Amino acid sequence: MIELLFSDPGFETAFAALLDMKREADENVDTQVAKILAEVRKQGDAALISYTARFDRMELKPETLRITEAEVDEAVAACDPALIKALNAAAKRIHAFHAKQLPKDYAFTDKVGVRLGLRWTPVQAAGLYVPGGTAAYPSSVLMNAIPAKAAGVERLVMVVPTPGGRLNPLVLAAAKVVGIEEIYRIGGAQAVAALAYGTETIRQVDKIVGPGNAYVAAAKRRVFGAVGIDMIAGPSEILVVADGTNDPAWIAADLLSQAEHDSAAQSILITDDRDFGQRVVQAVESHLKTLSRAAIAKESWDKYGAIIVVPTIDEAVPLIDRIAPEHLELAVDDPDALADKVRNAGAIFLGRYTPEAVGDYVGGPNHVLPTARSARFSSGLGVLDFMKRTTLLGCDADSLRAIGPVAVTLAEAEGLGAHGLSVSIRLNPGEP
Amino acid sequence: MIELLFSDPGFETAFAALLDMKREADENVDTQVAKILAEVRKQGDAALISYTARFDRMELKPETLRITEAEVDEAVAACDPALIKALNAAAKRIHAFHAKQLPKDYAFTDKVGVRLGLRWTPVQAAGLYVPGGTAAYPSSVLMNAIPAKAAGVERLVMVVPTPGGRLNPLVLAAAKVVGIEEIYRIGGAQAVAALAYGTETIRQVDKIVGPGNAYVAAAKRRVFGAVGIDMIAGPSEILVVADGTNDPAWIAADLLSQAEHDSAAQSILITDDRDFGQRVVQAVESHLKTLSRAAIAKESWDKYGAIIVVPTIDEAVPLIDRIAPEHLELAVDDPDALADKVRNAGAIFLGRYTPEAVGDYVGGPNHVLPTARSARFSSGLGVLDFMKRTTLLGCDADSLRAIGPVAVTLAEAEGLGAHGLSVSIRLNPGEP
Repeated sequence: MIELLFSDPGFETAFAALLDMKREADENVDTQVAKILAEVRKQGDAALISYTARFDRMELKPETLRITEAEVDEAVAACDPALIKALNAAAKRIHAFHAKQLPKDYAFTDKVGVRLGLRWTPVQAAGLYVPGGTAAYPSSVLMNAIPAKAAGVERLVMVVPTPGGRLNPLVLAAAKVVGIEEIYRIGGAQAVAALAYGTETIRQVDKIVGPGNAYVAAAKRRVFGAVGIDMIAGPSEILVVADGTNDPAWIAADLLSQAEHDSAAQSILITDDRDFGQRVVQAVESHLKTLSRAAIAKESWDKYGAIIVVPTIDEAVPLIDRIAPEHLELAVDDPDALADKVRNAGAIFLGRYTPEAVGDYVGGPNHVLPTARSARFSSGLGVLDFMKRTTLLGCDADSLRAIGPVAVTLAEAEGLGAHGLSVSIRLNPGEP
Repeated sequence: MIELLFSDPGFETAFAALLDMKREADENVDTQVAKILAEVRKQGDAALISYTARFDRMELKPETLRITEAEVDEAVAACDPALIKALNAAAKRIHAFHAKQLPKDYAFTDKVGVRLGLRWTPVQAAGLYVPGGTAAYPSSVLMNAIPAKAAGVERLVMVVPTPGGRLNPLVLAAAKVVGIEEIYRIGGAQAVAALAYGTETIRQVDKIVGPGNAYVAAAKRRVFGAVGIDMIAGPSEILVVADGTNDPAWIAADLLSQAEHDSAAQSILITDDRDFGQRVVQAVESHLKTLSRAAIAKESWDKYGAIIVVPTIDEAVPLIDRIAPEHLELAVDDPDALADKVRNAGAIFLGRYTPEAVGDYVGGPNHVLPTARSARFSSGLGVLDFMKRTTLLGCDADSLRAIGPVAVTLAEAEGLGAHGLSVSIRLNPGEP
């Protein structure tokens, strides 16, 4: 953990270094991933089955690639009903928030009679990657699937590796809650390949979303273009802006809630009260004594944690925009006024009673958010990520006469004769 | 040019082969591009100036990197006033179409008192790459810059190489028309690096858009993540659906208007009248005798052109959706009814008097559109590409009590203790 004082002469250099801090391991898996993709593309199910035997120690046949409805029901029946109830409550709130994102088409005829329009349609099929093992979060199933469903995606396919045959019942329960009916027990780059290119058993999708390890990320990068992908997420981050009247134990818990995700996660506190900052540091130490994931959280906090002390909270605004945090918590008296000044943040949590974790599960907004300063130019997952726009243009003879000559002039200036011809031939049908 | 008959037993195989046809040259420039990016990142202006001397034969100093307002004015004064007028007319229509894309924020308080919202903000700075030489299209300056301006992007930076010192006056005129004031005479991967990382003279941007050669495309792929990028466009395509009552010379001109872009472009006609298709082939031959870019157009048509004969126009719909064309022209009696059935297309041109070229320049919709079947999952350039969403969530003590327990339940089920703690510590402030 480092402390940066805005009033120090070296602040700008130290802050720039904080922004440039590299937290992602460079795992060079690309060559291996390229080979896996090519094999699945060429050999379909056979390659998929062979890689699954090798990586997940599972002997499958084309008929057993898919997880049956009976298996899902069995898994769900084994879950604590309180958990199913919690998943349903969360899904309901997430759906309500996302349903409001459905965009409006527009269509109009302008004054020269040209008909113009823009139309949104959902992608036809989306694939959702769900990691196996400890990184399998049922909440992520909700967050990735619900925007797709709200967008109107007809076919939603889930892939989840089941190493050694172990199914995660809560992940299947989450799939059931959101209505995913097509689920395959495959993972890794081979699963991404199957979704992107299709096999005899698995039909190709149009877009692939969801988190994964370095192999999955490399595979998504490589299939991009053949299909759409969501962002490639980096390690999680939180930026908490807190004045000195907060309870240090609350703020410390918030910082640790990101730190416990990953030893490469980053938690930053900006405060106008240096003493308060020190009390938060002590509270972090104290929480770490009891937390189940203390080792991971401590490593993240020690390596990447930061406290930035500013003279006044207003001074935080340009720093926030430069950090462009994935999660921004505003634990101050008037969080709305501060939020209004912020330009770059994935998600903002307003006030002292809105820990980021409530947004991870049940608030309503998505928890798939832009990391590594990409909130400067990108957004959390939403309904629009599962839709695309088509524009419409319609002229008749009269309106083409009104606007066509401009097209001819510009086409000729650009040296594109056939462009000009395709317009002029309609303007002067008698003179070819 | 190939002809495919829907009624042939081999149709599905031939159609699948058409979809899989690879039209992009694999230019392996990535290693060289990586080096250029690293050099500019490390050495800033010095590297930029050195690469510009090498690739563009231009000796520059930091003070002469920027094209001055006087130079722009001089270039504009040298342009044919009719062209400036045409650019202004086009810009006005393009702006009117894009201004309608400004999205709406939303904010509401739900019944348990949780405040929720979604807010759109423009990216703060966008860079527009404009190619030099023959591929420098003033219309592309309009199409890339106007959505950014409509989004509210404060700083719009243009880079354009000027090999041997030659400025393209029309490109500068287009920049002036749309209000771009910051223009640098640099190009290639080095210009992309300068925009992405910044140099002493050029401040970093948040998003880079615009077309370019293989070096530019590779550079954009590599800086993606540090900044946002638009799509990496492939060779252009048109799909014309035309019944037998069209004038074959009109449809032939439309097919050639894409073919003349690039020998790797693709023009496809779907018709329900095989004889009509043959008359279009003859009209193509006839036009090729007079067109200025006949050599390019002929190569594209010969290698990649296709005519697909269907029994009825309705049979075209699933084929259209599988092709997911960049440009779709519907030269039929009731184009709206047909357009309603189409799911995947970048832009649709309705009826017999709407050649695609009118949309390239002056219709209003954008001409930067998804190629290579990516209209299945992506969209033409628009205002939203220059904006990003931030979600907002606000609880008070009561509303946290209403939804917090669900978060605690799910956090514990996922084994994320600090997540649970950050909520429970606020629910039961007396019991740490």
